[in-house]
Amino acid sequence: MIKDDEFIRNDGVPITKEEIRALSLSKLNLIHSDSVIDIGCGSGGMTIEMAKIAKKAYAMDNSEDAINTTKANLEKFNIGNCELISGDAKEELEKVLKKLKESNESNELNALPSENLKIFIGGTQNIEEILKIANKYSIKTIVSNTIVVNTGLKIAEILENYGYEIDLINMNVSYGRKIKSGYMMIARNPITIITAKK
Amino acid sequence: MIKDDEFIRNDGVPITKEEIRALSLSKLNLIHSDSVIDIGCGSGGMTIEMAKIAKKAYAMDNSEDAINTTKANLEKFNIGNCELISGDAKEELEKVLKKLKESNESNELNALPSENLKIFIGGTQNIEEILKIANKYSIKTIVSNTIVVNTGLKIAEILENYGYEIDLINMNVSYGRKIKSGYMMIARNPITIITAKK
Repeated sequence: MIKDDEFIRNDGVPITKEEIRALSLSKLNLIHSDSVIDIGCGSGGMTIEMAKIAKKAYAMDNSEDAINTTKANLEKFNIGNCELISGDAKEELEKVLKKLKESNESNELNALPSENLKIFIGGTQNIEEILKIANKYSIKTIVSNTIVVNTGLKIAEILENYGYEIDLINMNVSYGRKIKSGYMMIARNPITIITAKK
Repeated sequence: MIKDDEFIRNDGVPITKEEIRALSLSKLNLIHSDSVIDIGCGSGGMTIEMAKIAKKAYAMDNSEDAINTTKANLEKFNIGNCELISGDAKEELEKVLKKLKESNESNELNALPSENLKIFIGGTQNIEEILKIANKYSIKTIVSNTIVVNTGLKIAEILENYGYEIDLINMNVSYGRKIKSGYMMIARNPITIITAKK
């Protein structure tokens, strides 16, 4: 896992912290033939870790600063298999899925390759619309992180109603900071990770 | 990551839980050319995840039940690149490292391939002796998990005195259990993960 401080950062652009990235990645269970869509890519922390494993990554964010930060990190880590999409995920997600579906149909396959297409959601704006589209295109694996307790529960409820099997965990990580007399533990905020499978 | 309930289990033989495995694995940063020694392999949870990535794994435990459980899991998951060693790690670790050093020297390389050899410690009996041997053979990456707070701090202190750079984290995971009125969070015990690098 890349260390947090190795990423290029810009003010106001969030990053998924190392331990949360490690756990989210393990929940996604990506293999090299998978494609993955990163919704709300922020600084590109997850984008880069996912693109290192997956065949192809799509990263979207409605913040220009986030897109520029992710772009800088893709360059820094020599990632060539990621398409950056600037815009609102509630429109852009459907465009990407529609394009993938059409290109698949023209290859005489009759559906979206939903077995090999996974969605990671780091940003949770317009979450209802995004999950609706994911379900419409029969995405089999969705992993979402959130720092907002309400959002985590909302995501779990919506996806459950769509028939997904839900795994919900809460993770608290503290870091040992060495001081003269020993270690003091510095707490990170708790993060909820929801894994939905169909 | 393999789900906890997919492993063959035997009474009294511990297993590293899914989320702790994911995080420990990311701290090890294994690549396919690495070898890894699993000290106190228990049910083989970490052994199997590590052997799936590394070139070669060595798993040791002083409990016959643990060795048999790991053996059953290696067979279940078709892992062929793992050597099982039954015995006390404070003797067996040195034997393995000595053998690796000699085989390396006979290949006209003049040292232990310590850059590509990592140690994971899941069991913490005789920890002082084990860390002493690891340091003697210049192991560059050591990751250790412990549920005992004292042991975590002791490991950090010993390795620090040997000149290792220490990363110490504490991890609390809770699982959402669905009940009629919503999710209740079931707590796992906090685990300390120490990563030592030279």
